[in-house]
Amino acid sequence: FKFNVVKNKATGDERPSGKLSVKENSSCYHNNNDDDLFSGKLVQGKHVFQQNFSIRSYEVGPDSKITIGALTNLLQESAVNHLIRGGVMVEGLGWTPAMCLKNLIWVVYNIHILIDTYPSWSDVVEVETWTCASGRNGMRRDWLGRDYNTRKTLFTAVSVYVMMNKKTRKLSKFIEETRQETKPLFMDYCDPIINDATKLRDLDFDTAHYVIKDLSPKWTDLDVNQHVNHVKYINWILQSAPESILETQKLCSLKLEFRKECGKNSLLHSLSAISKKSDQGFELEHTLRLQNGLTILRGRTVWMPRNY
Amino acid sequence: FKFNVVKNKATGDERPSGKLSVKENSSCYHNNNDDDLFSGKLVQGKHVFQQNFSIRSYEVGPDSKITIGALTNLLQESAVNHLIRGGVMVEGLGWTPAMCLKNLIWVVYNIHILIDTYPSWSDVVEVETWTCASGRNGMRRDWLGRDYNTRKTLFTAVSVYVMMNKKTRKLSKFIEETRQETKPLFMDYCDPIINDATKLRDLDFDTAHYVIKDLSPKWTDLDVNQHVNHVKYINWILQSAPESILETQKLCSLKLEFRKECGKNSLLHSLSAISKKSDQGFELEHTLRLQNGLTILRGRTVWMPRNY
Repeated sequence: FKFNVVKNKATGDERPSGKLSVKENSSCYHNNNDDDLFSGKLVQGKHVFQQNFSIRSYEVGPDSKITIGALTNLLQESAVNHLIRGGVMVEGLGWTPAMCLKNLIWVVYNIHILIDTYPSWSDVVEVETWTCASGRNGMRRDWLGRDYNTRKTLFTAVSVYVMMNKKTRKLSKFIEETRQETKPLFMDYCDPIINDATKLRDLDFDTAHYVIKDLSPKWTDLDVNQHVNHVKYINWILQSAPESILETQKLCSLKLEFRKECGKNSLLHSLSAISKKSDQGFELEHTLRLQNGLTILRGRTVWMPRNY
Repeated sequence: FKFNVVKNKATGDERPSGKLSVKENSSCYHNNNDDDLFSGKLVQGKHVFQQNFSIRSYEVGPDSKITIGALTNLLQESAVNHLIRGGVMVEGLGWTPAMCLKNLIWVVYNIHILIDTYPSWSDVVEVETWTCASGRNGMRRDWLGRDYNTRKTLFTAVSVYVMMNKKTRKLSKFIEETRQETKPLFMDYCDPIINDATKLRDLDFDTAHYVIKDLSPKWTDLDVNQHVNHVKYINWILQSAPESILETQKLCSLKLEFRKECGKNSLLHSLSAISKKSDQGFELEHTLRLQNGLTILRGRTVWMPRNY
């Protein structure tokens, strides 16, 4: 029996393939311009954004390691900073001028994070991120997180965003104007850093092993897109995971697919089921659904013993 | 009718009084050592720690302003960094060598935050913090948050910490060894930056106007002290505040008093009551209590219209 954690391309050569040129040597990472140390910088033309984060005391959990929520936040932060520094974003979370004119926003369609090693408080993590079109309507983004000092790969992630109309809350095509606006930043093509084609399924009350009912988003749970942020969803998913797994295992893969957005007047249920179990750990399935049964998101997490 | 927001000493001269010497001019804040820009530094001997924070995209709420939870996190971060840089902390959240030997940890006894202006995403906030003994058993810490560029005071805060035995979870005296260890860092005396002697009272089901029942801390809500972190408490308090106040008003004063700690097997209730109401805003009282009626914390918040 093996878990469905796909081969992490990053842990080998660790550089995105495709149109990126490989840096001559690693010493260029450690330049002496301290201004860049935490502010981030564009590298490889504007194609890659690199930002360091010193893990803060409040970003770690009871095990002194960064929480999955805090880690996911760093992904969002580096992504929007790439769009800001690249000069394509004027407002909100990555909205370009044409998107603002047409009332379009980016929303997360899916995300997959593989964590090999969780950084601890005060560790410096170097996050590199790059982006390209995904199919006709999506924007894909890849991340690679390294320990700044040891150069060890800590985590990789990939996410697809789609456009949504801010007023109608309906999905939109990736508009041509933004395709032009983002051209200097987007790579023409790039192999995804994680390749996992396995499907996720919805849980219902019959198939779930653990259920937390009536989670109620408050105004304070909303982000600048006026909907519940994906990190809040992660916390709700973990609420229905068994405490024994949270305490003894480490989360090493988190895959989420967002089906519907959720605002502050919703009531939702968090459902989890153990789908695989072995000495090497657990695989869990997750669904967040509205009272009326509609799926907000489905997900899969893979857990391994903490000291594995 | 006037709110009980006390005069904020910081908005005048903005420097702590007592043994601190006033800096000659403000230009020394903007030194060119970029390494210090976000890493923080000891100033005025070791008595004051100064750290800049660039507000991140995920630290702001639906109004694009920093959330009270994120702001409180920055206070904790600058406080522990002061203890680390000052060389007195070896482990955990500010534990000195003698504290580690005797299994003692710091816990928050009370905290009072006054917010004049909430910073927005990407604003750089300069936090200054200093500390001194508080009575025989406490450690008081003061904070002053300024806009790095405009020098405008954004917020002030003061908190008292006490020692607790990590194993028995009982409060302890401020041990003599740690009094010696922290001597180079602690000021002999310093006027508190906020002076509000008004008492807080406990709410019960009869006096509360709003009640959220059965909040259940999970393992993921614990911090490295293995109890629920004070920022989580703030979120639970706000859960029982009326949505209409959260959406139309800004929180300008938050005063909390912690009576008992709370671990992951507790079930607790969040109680709120409107104690004052006028054109200028609202004053709310809050209590978090266990099922058996014991008070975990009591608090008071003051709210003003967002564009006041």
